[in-house]
Amino acid sequence: MSRRQITGFSNPTVKALRALRDKKHRKAAGKFLAEGLRLLTDARESGHLPEVLVMAEERDPHPLLAALEADVLAAGGEVIETTADILSKITGKDNAQAVCGVFAEFDTGLAALDRSKAKIWLVAQALRDPGNLGTMLRTGDAVGAGGLILIDDCADPFSAETVRASMGAIFTQQVAQARWEDFLPWLRGDAGQLVAASLRDAVPYRGAPYAAPCFIMVGNESRGLPEDYELACDLRVTMPMKGRADSLNAAVAGAVLAYEVLVALGG
Amino acid sequence: MSRRQITGFSNPTVKALRALRDKKHRKAAGKFLAEGLRLLTDARESGHLPEVLVMAEERDPHPLLAALEADVLAAGGEVIETTADILSKITGKDNAQAVCGVFAEFDTGLAALDRSKAKIWLVAQALRDPGNLGTMLRTGDAVGAGGLILIDDCADPFSAETVRASMGAIFTQQVAQARWEDFLPWLRGDAGQLVAASLRDAVPYRGAPYAAPCFIMVGNESRGLPEDYELACDLRVTMPMKGRADSLNAAVAGAVLAYEVLVALGG
Repeated sequence: MSRRQITGFSNPTVKALRALRDKKHRKAAGKFLAEGLRLLTDARESGHLPEVLVMAEERDPHPLLAALEADVLAAGGEVIETTADILSKITGKDNAQAVCGVFAEFDTGLAALDRSKAKIWLVAQALRDPGNLGTMLRTGDAVGAGGLILIDDCADPFSAETVRASMGAIFTQQVAQARWEDFLPWLRGDAGQLVAASLRDAVPYRGAPYAAPCFIMVGNESRGLPEDYELACDLRVTMPMKGRADSLNAAVAGAVLAYEVLVALGG
Repeated sequence: MSRRQITGFSNPTVKALRALRDKKHRKAAGKFLAEGLRLLTDARESGHLPEVLVMAEERDPHPLLAALEADVLAAGGEVIETTADILSKITGKDNAQAVCGVFAEFDTGLAALDRSKAKIWLVAQALRDPGNLGTMLRTGDAVGAGGLILIDDCADPFSAETVRASMGAIFTQQVAQARWEDFLPWLRGDAGQLVAASLRDAVPYRGAPYAAPCFIMVGNESRGLPEDYELACDLRVTMPMKGRADSLNAAVAGAVLAYEVLVALGG
């Protein structure tokens, strides 16, 4: 166990932590940041402890923070106390939370997924917006999904914005990353229904013949899904579009479908 | 009709347009910016023409852009040609779209709403995220809602980010802004059912007794709805929460409810 204080902006640890805001450095280090007592408590209660816990010296005492600190030290992690200014520098936010943690990135290989664990899985293809990605993780948690599978070039699931938008679901949902040409054979290697909202040869989303494990796929924010991805689906469904637009926000479409599938598969 | 070229960064028109990125200046001018041919075409087809159309000199010719230009000039508006660099300066984006337009802000008084025009209305209370706000407008368009009513201190519906996230729905959905103490008497002045997702004395959202015109209300991203707002609702509904979290993203919750109400009220 280890515990220390840092007061200098140019301290190499501060630089290393700050660099985790950048995707390239996150990949190289295999680590990511999560901010705020609520998020860190969600992580802890889901069995994830930070390797490094960084706390503001001027923080208000809180039993959950004390518990977190004790657990991190007991697990051999490091606890750093620093100034509010340095915390702001690390997180890049003017009003930084009084605490942040550094976590090891999770294994995001498809092989780590056990599809029998849940009736619903969410799939996103080339989803570029970290807020949408975090929102999908949060929705997945709400509907009891097993996790989120990111196809092709999606936003980084470990960015601060995704982690924040997930409201802790980054710690409860499994995340996998795969190219389409690897995902499809994996999917077909066992039972699994691939479903997408589509305008091509589709049935109404309400009352469609959903089957578990059901993989609900949404596409890129601007372009939607490529045609061949849609055609590879086992079930294409349409949702009512009463206005001018012919599509919903990707995270919204995924959520409306996910709640429909949840009901269809018996809650 | 008027048409001119601007090539200088310090041109006062460029400064005035650029200032519209700032809320204070938008309010003072009563105008807002929308970017991109798709958004401007959506606006035009919904009966909204920009007062000023700004185009890059180096743009590719496009029949929709030519039609827009002709309509703006015919309506007595102004067309400005400028450099890609100046367009980037106006919109604040590195890769600016080749065109943007300046619109007069719409009347957002409650008195302008005709609730009999639609079965569904969306209501957001203290919604702070412009992306969420734009997403709600987009969802409103999709479910055939009449518009979005913003209660208390919400994000600005005329910010560039909201307009972008609305995918054109800012031009098809009515928007109203009101304090709660003005909204509630307005609502009670005629038929209207106020509905919110809630954990207090609520019924399952699926199959709940929705009635038109149905006002679906969501609360602030962090705090949800104040208790007295929830208690003022005619119907409180719960949605399944299978995971750790007890809430959804506000725009997602609104969308799942809106699609349920759409079905309940006969599509």
